[in-house]
Amino acid sequence: MNRAELFDQIKKKQSYLCVGLDTDLEKIPTHLLTSDDPVFEFNKQIIDATREYAVAYKPNVAFYESLGAKGWRSLEKTLDYIPKDCFSIADAKRGDIGNTSALYARTFFKQMDFDSVTVAPYMGEDSVKPFLGFDGKWVILLVHTSNPGSRDFQLLETREGKFLYEEVILASQFWATADQMMYVVGATHAEKIGSIRALAPDHFFLVPGVGAQGGDLAAVSRAGMTAQCGLLVNSSRSIIYASDKEDFADAAQKAAREVREEMQKLLTEYCR
Amino acid sequence: MNRAELFDQIKKKQSYLCVGLDTDLEKIPTHLLTSDDPVFEFNKQIIDATREYAVAYKPNVAFYESLGAKGWRSLEKTLDYIPKDCFSIADAKRGDIGNTSALYARTFFKQMDFDSVTVAPYMGEDSVKPFLGFDGKWVILLVHTSNPGSRDFQLLETREGKFLYEEVILASQFWATADQMMYVVGATHAEKIGSIRALAPDHFFLVPGVGAQGGDLAAVSRAGMTAQCGLLVNSSRSIIYASDKEDFADAAQKAAREVREEMQKLLTEYCR
Repeated sequence: MNRAELFDQIKKKQSYLCVGLDTDLEKIPTHLLTSDDPVFEFNKQIIDATREYAVAYKPNVAFYESLGAKGWRSLEKTLDYIPKDCFSIADAKRGDIGNTSALYARTFFKQMDFDSVTVAPYMGEDSVKPFLGFDGKWVILLVHTSNPGSRDFQLLETREGKFLYEEVILASQFWATADQMMYVVGATHAEKIGSIRALAPDHFFLVPGVGAQGGDLAAVSRAGMTAQCGLLVNSSRSIIYASDKEDFADAAQKAAREVREEMQKLLTEYCR
Repeated sequence: MNRAELFDQIKKKQSYLCVGLDTDLEKIPTHLLTSDDPVFEFNKQIIDATREYAVAYKPNVAFYESLGAKGWRSLEKTLDYIPKDCFSIADAKRGDIGNTSALYARTFFKQMDFDSVTVAPYMGEDSVKPFLGFDGKWVILLVHTSNPGSRDFQLLETREGKFLYEEVILASQFWATADQMMYVVGATHAEKIGSIRALAPDHFFLVPGVGAQGGDLAAVSRAGMTAQCGLLVNSSRSIIYASDKEDFADAAQKAAREVREEMQKLLTEYCR
């Protein structure tokens, strides 16, 4: 899915919600555990319930990997079930030397057919570039993440007076255009999103951390939204685990609809 | 496997060789392709041929993942086949927010039973700590990697006059001891290994980049070896693809034996 198509979906659905599929056997409703593939069954019902309100789905690969080969099959089935008009994100945070990153790219873009994959920048250009050789596919590069540990290295100041995450943004713009790369910017750093936007005026930001991690959707949108929206805001736990009972899909739908309502207002206000 | 046991194996085998299992269907001898599980069959023969000379095996997870669920099974079978007196490394370069890193840890330490996993430091302390809660298991943290892109961010200088990779070493020593953590230091930076050793006198270094990537075993050993060896030097392509014919296992054995012979001399010279 290219940038224009993504923006079309945002306008059509009046939403920039990404639903994070952090599907955990220990958290899904117990009545699903008797099905052949509980993880996929849960995801299927979550997708059916939220697809009207979400423009993107983001399976967190760790949750599938932790179940071994069976979990890998659940991931493949989930990707096949994500509607083609939704943007799909493999949240994998991969990154290795060039020949190895090329294989990770093959995994997520050929073996599977994700629109995008999250990539960690620590190993530099040749660890990221192999993900960029696929038409219509995206790298979503970690810049300033939502977790407490984001302070440890991302906020180190370089001799040039920049934060490490700013160096990552500046360097990576030589590697890829805003049609191939997005940046991960945590909602827990709402106060920094304006300055990050100034460094990357055209790039989409994938913003995790609204919901369970405490980020503020309105503050993020005010600081980060562009004329083409430029934001995908992810919620995982606050939507998919809105209820742990048999009504989990209805509860997820209600939670997604409420986020969409707020996003609709924010789009009217800031995206023009 | 704990540090004393690892050093015992090094003394017994007179080797600190790690064989990297970067097993690629496009590179293995074609006669194996008719077997049920060519990747495992290749690994099995490589392990049989080299186990006398290697103290560690490092499957590169990307190569298995890129084959989907089937590749994941090949990885599980390979791990089961690695002799219990060899140290096993899941070269996965994972790292995510705390609850997600906990799942990656579960994948490699519970779902599978690797001794160690490589972890990327960009997301900081809470992305690394979940891997440390397993008795006898190790984090191998990326510090200064062997690839060209290692220059992009790892060599940024901070306001305190340190390279980013030095900040990673200093910070991470508050998270884990030398009995729980090793560092990845590329053999392509042999000139820096002495200064890195000064910052981390007791830690094992996993050193990739000897062989196909051009690193120099003697230079690395001179600069990095401690009284307890303190090094695991990885070779992948130069051993496992020493021949692409039916004699691949014999050729791998010969290549591993030659490395062991050099290591034996270097241990006598520098490890005391």
